[in-house]
Amino acid sequence: MTADRDMENAGEMDHSAFRYGVFTKNRVEAFSDGIFAIIVTLLILEIKVPHIENVDSATALLQSFQGLLPKFVSWVISFLTICIVWVNHHRIFDTFKGFNIALFWLNVQVLLWVCFIPFPTALVGDYPHNPLAVAFYGVVMAMTGAALVAVRFYGAMNKEILKEGISLKAYKQAIFFAFIFGPVFYLVGAGLAWVNTFVSFAMYFFIAVYFIFSFKFHGHQQED
Amino acid sequence: MTADRDMENAGEMDHSAFRYGVFTKNRVEAFSDGIFAIIVTLLILEIKVPHIENVDSATALLQSFQGLLPKFVSWVISFLTICIVWVNHHRIFDTFKGFNIALFWLNVQVLLWVCFIPFPTALVGDYPHNPLAVAFYGVVMAMTGAALVAVRFYGAMNKEILKEGISLKAYKQAIFFAFIFGPVFYLVGAGLAWVNTFVSFAMYFFIAVYFIFSFKFHGHQQED
Amino acid sequence: MTADRDMENAGEMDHSAFRYGVFTKNRVEAFSDGIFAIIVTLLILEIKVPHIENVDSATALLQSFQGLLPKFVSWVISFLTICIVWVNHHRIFDTFKGFNIALFWLNVQVLLWVCFIPFPTALVGDYPHNPLAVAFYGVVMAMTGAALVAVRFYGAMNKEILKEGISLKAYKQAIFFAFIFGPVFYLVGAGLAWVNTFVSFAMYFFIAVYFIFSFKFHGHQQED
Amino acid sequence: MTADRDMENAGEMDHSAFRYGVFTKNRVEAFSDGIFAIIVTLLILEIKVPHIENVDSATALLQSFQGLLPKFVSWVISFLTICIVWVNHHRIFDTFKGFNIALFWLNVQVLLWVCFIPFPTALVGDYPHNPLAVAFYGVVMAMTGAALVAVRFYGAMNKEILKEGISLKAYKQAIFFAFIFGPVFYLVGAGLAWVNTFVSFAMYFFIAVYFIFSFKFHGHQQED
Repeated sequence: MTADRDMENAGEMDHSAFRYGVFTKNRVEAFSDGIFAIIVTLLILEIKVPHIENVDSATALLQSFQGLLPKFVSWVISFLTICIVWVNHHRIFDTFKGFNIALFWLNVQVLLWVCFIPFPTALVGDYPHNPLAVAFYGVVMAMTGAALVAVRFYGAMNKEILKEGISLKAYKQAIFFAFIFGPVFYLVGAGLAWVNTFVSFAMYFFIAVYFIFSFKFHGHQQED
Repeated sequence: MTADRDMENAGEMDHSAFRYGVFTKNRVEAFSDGIFAIIVTLLILEIKVPHIENVDSATALLQSFQGLLPKFVSWVISFLTICIVWVNHHRIFDTFKGFNIALFWLNVQVLLWVCFIPFPTALVGDYPHNPLAVAFYGVVMAMTGAALVAVRFYGAMNKEILKEGISLKAYKQAIFFAFIFGPVFYLVGAGLAWVNTFVSFAMYFFIAVYFIFSFKFHGHQQED
Repeated sequence: MTADRDMENAGEMDHSAFRYGVFTKNRVEAFSDGIFAIIVTLLILEIKVPHIENVDSATALLQSFQGLLPKFVSWVISFLTICIVWVNHHRIFDTFKGFNIALFWLNVQVLLWVCFIPFPTALVGDYPHNPLAVAFYGVVMAMTGAALVAVRFYGAMNKEILKEGISLKAYKQAIFFAFIFGPVFYLVGAGLAWVNTFVSFAMYFFIAVYFIFSFKFHGHQQED
Repeated sequence: MTADRDMENAGEMDHSAFRYGVFTKNRVEAFSDGIFAIIVTLLILEIKVPHIENVDSATALLQSFQGLLPKFVSWVISFLTICIVWVNHHRIFDTFKGFNIALFWLNVQVLLWVCFIPFPTALVGDYPHNPLAVAFYGVVMAMTGAALVAVRFYGAMNKEILKEGISLKAYKQAIFFAFIFGPVFYLVGAGLAWVNTFVSFAMYFFIAVYFIFSFKFHGHQQED
């Protein structure tokens, strides 16, 4: 494995220098950031303007909005979730000195799931009471979370690739929490879709809110 | 609250360094800029080529263009408005030393409204004489403006996060003007849709023009 | 006018510093580049997969491709033209020391036309023999070219905003050439659509090819 | 030819300086990276939510998913292939000192094929058993690979434009491998579509997997 050697080079890497055979950290990050920004904006394209017969009637339009409600809700949840994944992605890759080949493809695997999110978002907006649609949404989110856990796991297994001053104990604890609050909770939410799809929606929303408020806590933990 | 501490770190932050637990200003800005650039370009996708029977007839095509006129108008207004929001976003976040967690989510809340803009733009293009459609457009713009006011308000409440040399008096004055010319004027425009939708369109356009020409003035004010 | 004063500041501006009231050159450029990159890629979304009855028949698919030919041609022409506009945009703004408010809105006006290009491209792909569709395409391209000429013209009128070492004579000559080979030629091409739409297509393609091969020449001229 | 002279300038080029008549490497790269990021995310827009009559039936939705299977498969293959092209693009252009006019247009020619990929991806998802659709996909990938080979070839023919320390022997060997594993293998896959479309799919997937695992090897080769 060339991880050690690649990372040695990456350590010396300055902003403007590019080396053949080494992935430039800020170009991979810019590529990833671009993908996140695009996915978060493409979501709105799935909400189509409703067709109403009486084009000038405010009440007809208002009624058609009711049918759009699940689309608005799933749009907001997906929007916030992608922003959370972006923050996590940002934080996780900032613990690494640079990108080697394995990390690059682990990153691609995260981006693959992120790029897939518009499909389950549109699906759940069209069929909000269909348990398979709602569960499918949760499974895709669970896979996205698992993809990020895989990146963290790679870091824990290859600590020479991590930046100095990172506590491995806190790092492993973070993996555990990320695994529980990501894949596990999403799969529970997905399973609950067969009980009640509204409960699943609530759970997906709760996970997003949990992450938004947990960031401060984890930030602290790191600095200790 | 860790704002003080985070900002202390952010102050030392150089271009290439990334720290775990601190949001890197230029990555958050690049993410936001990417979102603005995408939204401003996606708008055109809502203007579909009209279907005409006599495919080679210039007059048939010209007639179909008349139906597209409200779409062209709403497209131009949204395009200019998003550029204005981008400039304001740029200016507002430039008054901060860096991003802490609260600012990050305040930023996400601005981006959420920006990303929603293609929907009311398409809506108003399809139903230009429907008061609800035209008012809905104004409400979304008002919310976008209010989201930016919230960011400014956070700055005024947490002056240790602001860059040195920023006059708090001018800052608070700017909040007042941003509140009046943003949310208040848009809501007035939205309300006028029940009187005459054309008046609302004119008002939305006037607000955009006002902002384009007011930038110079505010820039001056700052430098005094 | 504050152009002088803004530019003075811009001259001292370093990569990482942002000032309230001054447009940061590389953020405006990144915003513009993002818009160009998105527009050039969105074009393909207008080419829809054709519907054929006999789904497994290669000959049926091949026949449906013939109907797509004008879409492929207009896609290639628009793709190359947007790349040319990007290069010109890049070159023109590189002659300026930085962005002031007037330049920013002159830039927005260029981007507005660039963002509109997917519409005439789809239009001309759907109605390749309709003179209005083909002429409309040329008029939009002429307006895009005129928007860039306006930026150059602003530079010639405000030479204190131009970088040192730029020959004003060569600059004015470039405006003249850009005006002739941009707006004028496109409008001639648009007018010819009423004679023969194929001639217009050929002219639009010729203008693109001319610009691709003329870059070297202008580059030289500048260095003298 | 001005390649020598342009490159001389490019050698002295620092991060923030832009010169008229010289293409700034990191702006061209950012433009290209943006295009790759957008194309890789636009692919998902071609997978539409299926229409089912019984909106709350999980089994009806599950059945409709079977029809989407070829779309999912072609989406994954295209996603991975574009990431591979991005890596190759990144590596190839990192061997050059900068961009001259010829390299810029060779780059545009690569981007043109990359931007076209969503069309054959959607085509093959709609008509997975149609030999022309499956072969067309392979031909577009072959052309993309050939476009990159053309860039490498230009480098081999103009070694003064290559960075110091690059072994021309290894460079030429890389061209040979890139030609065989790119255009040649894709064209073989395309031809096999008339035997069995599944074999072509398998081949396209195999080529992607080969490239993912070959990167390490080539990286090594370079460092010797």
